[in-house]
Formats: sequence, C-alpha cells, structure tokens
Amino acid sequence: MNRPIVVGIAGGTASGKSTVAHKVCERLQDCRIALIDQDSYYRDLSDMSFEERLEVNFDHPDAFDTELMVRHLRLLKSGEGCQKPKYSFVNCLRERETVPVEPGDAIIVEGILVLGIEAIRKELDIKIFVDADGDERIVRRLTRDIKHRGRDFDAIVDQYFKSVRPMHYGFIEPSKRWADVIVPHGGHNDVAIDMVVDAIRQKLQASSSAR
Amino acid sequence: MNRPIVVGIAGGTASGKSTVAHKVCERLQDCRIALIDQDSYYRDLSDMSFEERLEVNFDHPDAFDTELMVRHLRLLKSGEGCQKPKYSFVNCLRERETVPVEPGDAIIVEGILVLGIEAIRKELDIKIFVDADGDERIVRRLTRDIKHRGRDFDAIVDQYFKSVRPMHYGFIEPSKRWADVIVPHGGHNDVAIDMVVDAIRQKLQASSSAR
Repeated sequence: MNRPIVVGIAGGTASGKSTVAHKVCERLQDCRIALIDQDSYYRDLSDMSFEERLEVNFDHPDAFDTELMVRHLRLLKSGEGCQKPKYSFVNCLRERETVPVEPGDAIIVEGILVLGIEAIRKELDIKIFVDADGDERIVRRLTRDIKHRGRDFDAIVDQYFKSVRPMHYGFIEPSKRWADVIVPHGGHNDVAIDMVVDAIRQKLQASSSAR
Repeated sequence: MNRPIVVGIAGGTASGKSTVAHKVCERLQDCRIALIDQDSYYRDLSDMSFEERLEVNFDHPDAFDTELMVRHLRLLKSGEGCQKPKYSFVNCLRERETVPVEPGDAIIVEGILVLGIEAIRKELDIKIFVDADGDERIVRRLTRDIKHRGRDFDAIVDQYFKSVRPMHYGFIEPSKRWADVIVPHGGHNDVAIDMVVDAIRQKLQASSSAR
C-alpha cells in the first residue's frame, strides 16, 4: 500500500474548520478517509481537583496530549487503525471508552493547533488554514455556546478575553504562516472545499494507478 | 462541449501570481489550457503625448481595457479562440500585431485586478489570490526592475509610493475578500500549485467522462 496522504486543517475557534473537515469527508464517502480531531486529545486531568481543572488554559498547546495524537497519526500513516480517546468536556476527563478509527488512504487531521504544534505539523503533507475574522468567530462561538450548549453569555465573554483570544493571537494566528493554502469564509466556502476534495481524489487516483 | 472552467489568479505586484499561473499551465501541458494575462489589456494611449502617458496611473482599474478582456474571455468560454493584444511597455502603446489564443478546456485569467474588477470577477469559477507580504514584494520588484529591466532605483521607489502602493491597498488587497482560496508564499508554493492543478485536472476528467 502507498503511504496515506495527510491533510491538516487548522483555524481559530468557530472559524469553520471542523465543518470544512466534515464536508471534505462527506464528499469523499466513496474513499477510505480517516479523521482525527485534536479536541479528542485534551490531556486527562483526573489527578486535579475540579477547582484546579477550572483554572486550566484549554487554548494553550500544553493542554493537548500531543504525544498520543502523533503516535495515533503514525499508526494511521503506517496503515493501521487506532483507538481515539473520548474526552468529556463536562468533567475535563478522558472517558474509559475509546473510538476506533479505521485506517484510510487519506487522513484528515483537524484542530486549532495542528499547524501551531510542530510535532503534528511535521506529519502533514497538505497544510490548510481556515480563516475567518475575529468578529465573525466570536459571534459564531456565542451563538453556539448560548443556544446549543446552554452556557452563560458573561462566562463565554470572560473566557474569550482570558484565554481564547490571547492564545489565538499567540499561537493559532501565527501558525497561518505554515499554511500551504488559506481558506477564507470557512465552512460555507464550497469552491475551496471542492478544491481540497478534488486534490485529494486526484492524489488517490494517481497513487492507485501507480500500484 | 462542456463550458470551460475559468480560474482567476490575482495578487499584488511581484506576489508570484504569474509564476503560479505559468506553473499551473506547465503542469497541465497534456490538457488544453488557455491563458490570458491582464497586462496585455492595458489601454492603448496612442492619442496621448509621451509626457501625458508618463502621468497615467497604471495601477488603477481604469488603466485596463476591461471591455475587450471580458469580450475575449467570453469568446474563450464559448469555445472560440481570440486575438490577444500585444502591449508595448516601452511606449505605452498597443502594438499592431496580436497574439492568437487557442480555446481551452480550462481558462486561466491572471492579473493584479482580476478579482478587483467586478466585470472580470463575475466570469470566474475559481477565484485565487496569491498573497505575499509588502516587504517581500517590493524587494522582488526592485530586484526584477533593476537587474532585468535596467531601471533606476529611485524611479522605482518613487513610482511605488506614488501609485503602486496606494493602488495596492485601495484596490488589490481589498479584492482578497472575493477569493475562494488564498495562496501564500507565491510562486514557490508547490503544494498549493499542485492542489490547483489537481483540482483542475479532476474537473476536466469529471466533465469529459460526463460527455
């Protein structure tokens, strides 16, 4: 088997990066695609008290178990499956059960810091940054967290200015420098999503005909 | 015949946009590709004196004969060829001879304002903006104009601050808003160029197999 092609999709909170990732997978349903998301790889904080966990900066690179994510990524690259952790955002704990990820001919790696963390970035063949302006992103995050997650307006705004925004400009926005391609207008950008899909499909066809 | 796919490639001076356009054409040599560049469509200024011509702002949208360019673009879209004008940058005149452009299954339209001028933008299926920082672009322009065009350093810098830069921030940079995909690092970005090539190839294959 040829080595799978690895596509990283980064971007700020509520930029539309996971919509882009899911639409790409959907349009390639006839191909074998493995998707791993950085959100599942938050560190397990079971050795901390609940109060301590509330103080953790979840937007900093250190919040992620990058070693495990890279190990899984390498398993997938060598044609093996992996057991992706399942993370409970309610308790900030890794759950007992895991989610099996089947090997794929293409691997999509999605998350805020997949370009910003070097160990992950080094594993990527195509580096995509999904871009959206700060005002669009915060409105989208407020809408999502208030309407769909029942969170309080003031708490979201507090967290935004305390950690989300400084970490965005400290780590996520600068990682745009590493992008091969920047996708504006996020999840609604059908032309760009089609282009990514077509490029992956072309690579898969070329590698299967080269076998 | 299916309608050709039209790809616009915009970007500032010395951003690498024409390198991207030429590399895309090169890698699709086995396909029928038509390329038209906005630089060939500068207005003919033969009714002006040489001194008047020196005062013209060549970085403003009005410097281009957009009506003619759109007419040619539509000919190519309907599967016909066109006679592209030949422009003399020495005399600011359109030359007598023209350059025949054969019809193609894909049409690449390259130039500083192909996204910034609505009449051209409306004709495009895929809108690409080649991005590079201002400092990189001016150094590239200085190198090119001094070393390869024998121009004077002070004259280039004067023109840069008098028209190139204000027009860039007035018309070119804002046109990035219309882009479907932004390509950073210009002509050296092989991953992005490959992605554009793969996407065009996939579209051409899909349309030929649908015939």
